[in-house]
Amino acid sequence: MSKTNPGHFFEDFAIGQVFDHATPRTITDGDRAVYGAIYPTRFSIPSSAQFAASVGLDPHPVEELVAFHVAFGKTVPDVSLNAVANLGYAELRFHQPVLAGDTLRTSSEVIGLKQNSNGKSGVVYVRSTATNQRGEIALDWARWVMVHKRDQSLEAPETVVPELASVVAPEDLLLPAGLDFTDYDVTAAGEPFRFDDYEVGEKIDHVDGVTLSESEHMMATRLWQNTAKVHFNVEARPDGRRLVYGGHVISMARALSFNGLANAQLIAAINGGSHTAPAFADDTVYAWSEVLDKAEVDAPGVGALRLRLVATKGRDESMTLKGEDGKYAPGVLLDLDLWALVPR
Amino acid sequence: MSKTNPGHFFEDFAIGQVFDHATPRTITDGDRAVYGAIYPTRFSIPSSAQFAASVGLDPHPVEELVAFHVAFGKTVPDVSLNAVANLGYAELRFHQPVLAGDTLRTSSEVIGLKQNSNGKSGVVYVRSTATNQRGEIALDWARWVMVHKRDQSLEAPETVVPELASVVAPEDLLLPAGLDFTDYDVTAAGEPFRFDDYEVGEKIDHVDGVTLSESEHMMATRLWQNTAKVHFNVEARPDGRRLVYGGHVISMARALSFNGLANAQLIAAINGGSHTAPAFADDTVYAWSEVLDKAEVDAPGVGALRLRLVATKGRDESMTLKGEDGKYAPGVLLDLDLWALVPR
Amino acid sequence: MSKTNPGHFFEDFAIGQVFDHATPRTITDGDRAVYGAIYPTRFSIPSSAQFAASVGLDPHPVEELVAFHVAFGKTVPDVSLNAVANLGYAELRFHQPVLAGDTLRTSSEVIGLKQNSNGKSGVVYVRSTATNQRGEIALDWARWVMVHKRDQSLEAPETVVPELASVVAPEDLLLPAGLDFTDYDVTAAGEPFRFDDYEVGEKIDHVDGVTLSESEHMMATRLWQNTAKVHFNVEARPDGRRLVYGGHVISMARALSFNGLANAQLIAAINGGSHTAPAFADDTVYAWSEVLDKAEVDAPGVGALRLRLVATKGRDESMTLKGEDGKYAPGVLLDLDLWALVPR
Repeated sequence: MSKTNPGHFFEDFAIGQVFDHATPRTITDGDRAVYGAIYPTRFSIPSSAQFAASVGLDPHPVEELVAFHVAFGKTVPDVSLNAVANLGYAELRFHQPVLAGDTLRTSSEVIGLKQNSNGKSGVVYVRSTATNQRGEIALDWARWVMVHKRDQSLEAPETVVPELASVVAPEDLLLPAGLDFTDYDVTAAGEPFRFDDYEVGEKIDHVDGVTLSESEHMMATRLWQNTAKVHFNVEARPDGRRLVYGGHVISMARALSFNGLANAQLIAAINGGSHTAPAFADDTVYAWSEVLDKAEVDAPGVGALRLRLVATKGRDESMTLKGEDGKYAPGVLLDLDLWALVPR
Repeated sequence: MSKTNPGHFFEDFAIGQVFDHATPRTITDGDRAVYGAIYPTRFSIPSSAQFAASVGLDPHPVEELVAFHVAFGKTVPDVSLNAVANLGYAELRFHQPVLAGDTLRTSSEVIGLKQNSNGKSGVVYVRSTATNQRGEIALDWARWVMVHKRDQSLEAPETVVPELASVVAPEDLLLPAGLDFTDYDVTAAGEPFRFDDYEVGEKIDHVDGVTLSESEHMMATRLWQNTAKVHFNVEARPDGRRLVYGGHVISMARALSFNGLANAQLIAAINGGSHTAPAFADDTVYAWSEVLDKAEVDAPGVGALRLRLVATKGRDESMTLKGEDGKYAPGVLLDLDLWALVPR
Repeated sequence: MSKTNPGHFFEDFAIGQVFDHATPRTITDGDRAVYGAIYPTRFSIPSSAQFAASVGLDPHPVEELVAFHVAFGKTVPDVSLNAVANLGYAELRFHQPVLAGDTLRTSSEVIGLKQNSNGKSGVVYVRSTATNQRGEIALDWARWVMVHKRDQSLEAPETVVPELASVVAPEDLLLPAGLDFTDYDVTAAGEPFRFDDYEVGEKIDHVDGVTLSESEHMMATRLWQNTAKVHFNVEARPDGRRLVYGGHVISMARALSFNGLANAQLIAAINGGSHTAPAFADDTVYAWSEVLDKAEVDAPGVGALRLRLVATKGRDESMTLKGEDGKYAPGVLLDLDLWALVPR
């Protein structure tokens, strides 16, 4: 019997099946530093323990995306090792800040299955939950991936497509305990713009770009213990190129969004997201955002902005998401829909 | 109104103007590790908590240049985003060791202005001060940069050129509280040479070279939250090359200087510095030093060496700083003048 | 007198000579994070403080190879700066887990000398011992390197070849105090296979490959304060290539071996090892293992597997170590013989 993990194929998944994913992972200030070396992040809460404490967050949390990537990485060996594509995310909520010293585990339940008409692959929907060393939920989310079938002669399973909210309702956002933006220091944070300064429909070109490098995307992806071969091995794809992990583009875009959204300090939820084109080393990634909605939330001095965060290969000052044909504009790499918490 | 930061232009600066720079930053042991992965540093005080404690430094400080880069990086968005060139440093003093857990902020005051005769740019002089979470000064320094004018039709401001000391007087050096080299362990430190073994005028070829890589200089520069576009984006310069942050060359040269100056453990002050040529990935950087002066200082067993630290592209065993024409010799990248503390 | 270290040549070594190597080094969680960014390691003990505590290891140790690389790096300036080749290792034992906060020093004693018949170089055998801040042994090992002579006219020293065990006897393995695999969680660890599931003679293809990059191998090697020029400087070798530190291949292979050996959690000893071919950036490294032996050890629920860990350039599904000519098969980079601790 082979002792190595070939990953699961479409026919290996069943509705209600639960995966208790391997390798719990303790997060440390070392992860904070490596993250800061790979992404140009400058949000003052994850950057400064002192600033975080001044808004009620003590001990010092790590950036939400650190927790996301760690939690997500654990699902790869069971869920997406044989994935053709990561199709989408929904209903991602951060339940509480993750601190240096916290240990995360992730489990996933299969909540949907839909074989493709070609009989060669199918879509698997899972709901994943990351818990800390006290068994409390740190974050949870749904995602769906297209997975190869091993044996194409097998019959299709019954189609189950879960109902997933297109957006997390503001009243369902979970705010960090103690969060208080009443004495928020805009000078330290870097920009004067508050909740009322942003309007629905407003677009912000984040100006700066970063040229990707092989070492950086591999180091980031490895830090999250994400094992997908295509990110690390030039022999894994016919074109001999290493595909950049989609989460690398998410973190790069989020960090670039500081310039114009410096006060969008915390991500409370990710409503949805699509990796609309592959990214490779030597691509120069830019970002722009659109304010999709605004909402009241129940913490002193805090408001929520629903933002579309778009990463592009090359700068697009026109900030065009889709062409007249309804397809994503050339150069769009990522279309992410999230709720961020800002001072009022 | 645009929400992104276009940076300041020459006409935006006024004498006495103060910038309270954004993004306080907590320094951790993670920064120490990433620093050690990027620079071949082996000075035993920052390397070993035990060695540091044996010379009176407990808790364990991080390398002074970690503090410098963090403090310096904060000034970039306000001072030098539109800089043509970083022209010089002066009067940099480390006031106290920076420890893991310390949070640094930086503010800068404009202390000089001088428009260039071409009317297209000018020199801005600032004095910057980095403070820790207790409001105590961690380090301060002056620097001057050449900055573009946005509107060349504007009149020149009154010229003010500050008087800056060409060298920090030895009696003005600030020594870490408790520093005591009486029981200094030269074996652990790696070389037997003490204060009396160095002579003014002596030159030391540090022998070793390091070939720069894109990922490493970008990771270092990002770690310091330095946002200057030219370091990260191949589309930011006409030649499509990423310029290496000058501070990367400083840290590389300082680390290389271990071989011959292993006991020049601590930097007390930087008297001046010039980045005399640009550096790029694939350049191989070497370093040599010249002992410029020696001084008594007021701590047990401690002396001060004034050192010229020179980084070169390619090794120059002749250790030539300038040619007969008075210009820097080809290959010289950095000419840095500093005070280091050594055992007597 | 030159202040820089030219390294020792063959005639500089004498039997019984002891080197107290420079630069004690404090290990932190930052090292853990950088290690995890460079190697795809997923063993649950070093990954999770919680898992480690569940098997009796609290506080959280770092991966053994972190300790090995730090301890080994210290020996380079005194032992192998002028080495032609690192010929072998033997009798390496980890005496106790290394924790974040521990400070390691290394000393080496010359235990053997054998001049080569060509009179131009010789083999130096040393036994090295790394101790922590309490003076306790963390690990020790023997290695032998071929070192250049400076003056070929000098007479050969008396030949002394030490007797070194070809394998550490199981009863000589040192187990971490408190180690207890009785309640070992195979789900968290990632694979169900225990001591009894492995058979002597069994081979495991670890499937995954990683393409090496210049920045990553330099960052790793620098993190260990290993100063060998050939790893960092394109001007150090006639072919202009940077040689990958052999320890980088060891750590890469060890990390890749997770896929099939996820429960080979701890390395207790390294019986021997050869770097059979050089590795360079852009090589894609794979690994396979062979179970060489099994042994009882004296800790609850714990058994020991003696494993041959082989790294190859390109995947070799045939897992061929040597050809019919008795020479290593093309593509073999590393042949390492170790004892690993697994749950029973």
